[in-house]
Amino acid sequence: MKPIAPSPLRIGIAGLGTVGAATLRLIQRQSLPLKIVAVSARDRQKERGLDLSGIRWEEDPLALAKAEDIDVVVETIGGSDGVAKALVEATLRAGKDVVTANKSLLATHGVKLAQLAEQHGAMLAFEAAIAGGIPVVKTLREGLAANRYEKILGILNGTSNFILTHMENDGVDFDEALAEATRLGYAEADPSYDIDGIDTAQKLSLLAALAFGCEPDVGAIAVEGIRDLSHLDMYFADELGYSIKLLGIACRRDDGRIEQRVHPCMLPADSPIGVDDVYNALVIEGEPVGRITLEGRGAGGGPTASAIVADILDIARGNRYLPFGKMQAAEFVPMHELLSAWYLRLAVKDEAGVLAEVTRTLAIEGISLQSFLQHSHQPEAAVQLVLTTHVTNEAAMRRAIAAISQLPQVTKPPKAIRIEE
Amino acid sequence: MKPIAPSPLRIGIAGLGTVGAATLRLIQRQSLPLKIVAVSARDRQKERGLDLSGIRWEEDPLALAKAEDIDVVVETIGGSDGVAKALVEATLRAGKDVVTANKSLLATHGVKLAQLAEQHGAMLAFEAAIAGGIPVVKTLREGLAANRYEKILGILNGTSNFILTHMENDGVDFDEALAEATRLGYAEADPSYDIDGIDTAQKLSLLAALAFGCEPDVGAIAVEGIRDLSHLDMYFADELGYSIKLLGIACRRDDGRIEQRVHPCMLPADSPIGVDDVYNALVIEGEPVGRITLEGRGAGGGPTASAIVADILDIARGNRYLPFGKMQAAEFVPMHELLSAWYLRLAVKDEAGVLAEVTRTLAIEGISLQSFLQHSHQPEAAVQLVLTTHVTNEAAMRRAIAAISQLPQVTKPPKAIRIEE
Repeated sequence: MKPIAPSPLRIGIAGLGTVGAATLRLIQRQSLPLKIVAVSARDRQKERGLDLSGIRWEEDPLALAKAEDIDVVVETIGGSDGVAKALVEATLRAGKDVVTANKSLLATHGVKLAQLAEQHGAMLAFEAAIAGGIPVVKTLREGLAANRYEKILGILNGTSNFILTHMENDGVDFDEALAEATRLGYAEADPSYDIDGIDTAQKLSLLAALAFGCEPDVGAIAVEGIRDLSHLDMYFADELGYSIKLLGIACRRDDGRIEQRVHPCMLPADSPIGVDDVYNALVIEGEPVGRITLEGRGAGGGPTASAIVADILDIARGNRYLPFGKMQAAEFVPMHELLSAWYLRLAVKDEAGVLAEVTRTLAIEGISLQSFLQHSHQPEAAVQLVLTTHVTNEAAMRRAIAAISQLPQVTKPPKAIRIEE
Repeated sequence: MKPIAPSPLRIGIAGLGTVGAATLRLIQRQSLPLKIVAVSARDRQKERGLDLSGIRWEEDPLALAKAEDIDVVVETIGGSDGVAKALVEATLRAGKDVVTANKSLLATHGVKLAQLAEQHGAMLAFEAAIAGGIPVVKTLREGLAANRYEKILGILNGTSNFILTHMENDGVDFDEALAEATRLGYAEADPSYDIDGIDTAQKLSLLAALAFGCEPDVGAIAVEGIRDLSHLDMYFADELGYSIKLLGIACRRDDGRIEQRVHPCMLPADSPIGVDDVYNALVIEGEPVGRITLEGRGAGGGPTASAIVADILDIARGNRYLPFGKMQAAEFVPMHELLSAWYLRLAVKDEAGVLAEVTRTLAIEGISLQSFLQHSHQPEAAVQLVLTTHVTNEAAMRRAIAAISQLPQVTKPPKAIRIEE
């Protein structure tokens, strides 16, 4: 590791979209020992409202990795492969430091890139890849470094949180809320990455690696998105004192195995992380610190640039570290062993004995009820029977749901959502 | 600044109360390059349940500063002067690093101690002095370092927050809530330091120095405590959709002057920092990151030790900095220029025209009403007239309150609490 950074630190920026442009502006405004030497973006002619005087334009972003006069490359191109990957690899191989906001790249190739950084004594800094402006990477790596981490839980995707907040507050269904998110520019033309939980899972894999010292492994995360949530679930959640949020959860079990999952959750309405709209929030539980909560804007040019420049300032001050510490291959808990309490919504025929039949089916799997609601005056023809259960394991609940689906009184596939108290 | 720290870093701990003992235990548990060489505390005979084998006992804490085999002194003695001050000064003069949880010492002598640290190339680290386990010092100094800070607002004293929560939830009056806090060990025999806002002001002076680059100056902070709050104010706060919290607030005005104040505030009941009991919470507003919220336990052995050991690990990694950056003498906004909205509670005679008279008195000072409540069925003989105002300056409100006190229909001194939206 290089102990002393050159002053001013010479920076190349690849990509001049929202994040790249905000980063350039923020560095230009600072009275700090940072100098932008060169930039590279796809279209040189595009009007971006940036002052690029005195800054070299590179048609090929890979030239930034090779340039003798650049110490740090800021990668804001995005994508798990292609140019972004080639640029980050080439920069690390040249022994230069990389600052990136690219969670896809790190979640997919993080292990190899971290090894490359270590081999070449280069930094691979990624505060901006998780929860935008919230300094959660620094908090886990340094601020709470004395702790043994037990659990990380977070709302990590602003787009899906906007959609869920809109559904909850305005009683609209998923499709309408998604259309509104698209109209406001919060959702992409292909929204799958955000609403199917992929983005959350990528970020969670990085958080788990930082907290538990495991290799980031997005493939080991059980993922469910928010497409199937209905306004009925929002209605009943409210009645039960919950909000529905898309959560990423990682924890270390007593046996040392790591549990990682992304899915919609019933969260108590007064939960400290129950943030609305495009905000992100995280809970970190550690010993001896207890529970620490962080909230802030999880995306956007300004918050992301704040995180990128904080990483650059760390490099300028010579504050150097390995991307994920000393990674160890970890054992992950398989999905069927997960433990949760559940909310179940059943469309049932309005007959006597339905609740008894459902309860009996749950009891066969050893699942006990916490509470139930029955609503006959819902806007759908069938009666809605809503149950919450005590904590049970995933495999038992899956079997119970399959059995309940077969009951003659149950008219539609049951809706099941985990509860996180 | 010393670029490379010795490994293992050799540590002396002064004070073995709750925090010192928790710090010793946490370091002993870690598999980190840290070694406790010596400790010093008042009573060697006291049974603390600590494993002190292989650790030198120094009768005189100042011996830690002089010892050749110690790199870092952890000061957990406390107090703004006396032994703690002598030890910190001697340690810095010896060119050794200090880690302390002592906000009284830093708020009182921070400028001189910071200069001493700079002169001798030593660290003076104090993450543990503010908000216990919440890494707010690191967040301000590093995590959000790219931002221009605009405002810091926090619940920084767990004792007073416990008392206010108890008053709000259980309808008890201040004296009873204080007695309960004392019984539970949250309040000292002399609770003034906590309940009169002194502790909050000391922490705020350090936060303002970190955020705005000013010299910490607790004397420049206008301070009001929570002694005078009644259950009636809690009742009306609830009715208006607020909670009453003791806040420390510092902000930078457009003219560059710094505003600092500590007082009870009406805070929206759904505010993200409306934490209960002994929790602390802070909001940091900066450009371009926006609003970042941090929450966690603000006191206690475990959380404080978490912060102390994080500081030690920074030193071990060679992550060095000046205590308050490059301090500049700042101009502070005088109290009479503060701007707030207000809640006013008046005990009035049940006569026609009272509201008109009060409104007229406010209007003379240019203060306009936001809302009012009138309750005649309160458990006190007089009618309670509750007003909230739009934002106004402190001097005008002081004059208006003095004038209202003189109205013949007003039977008691008015109760006035600022509102923070």
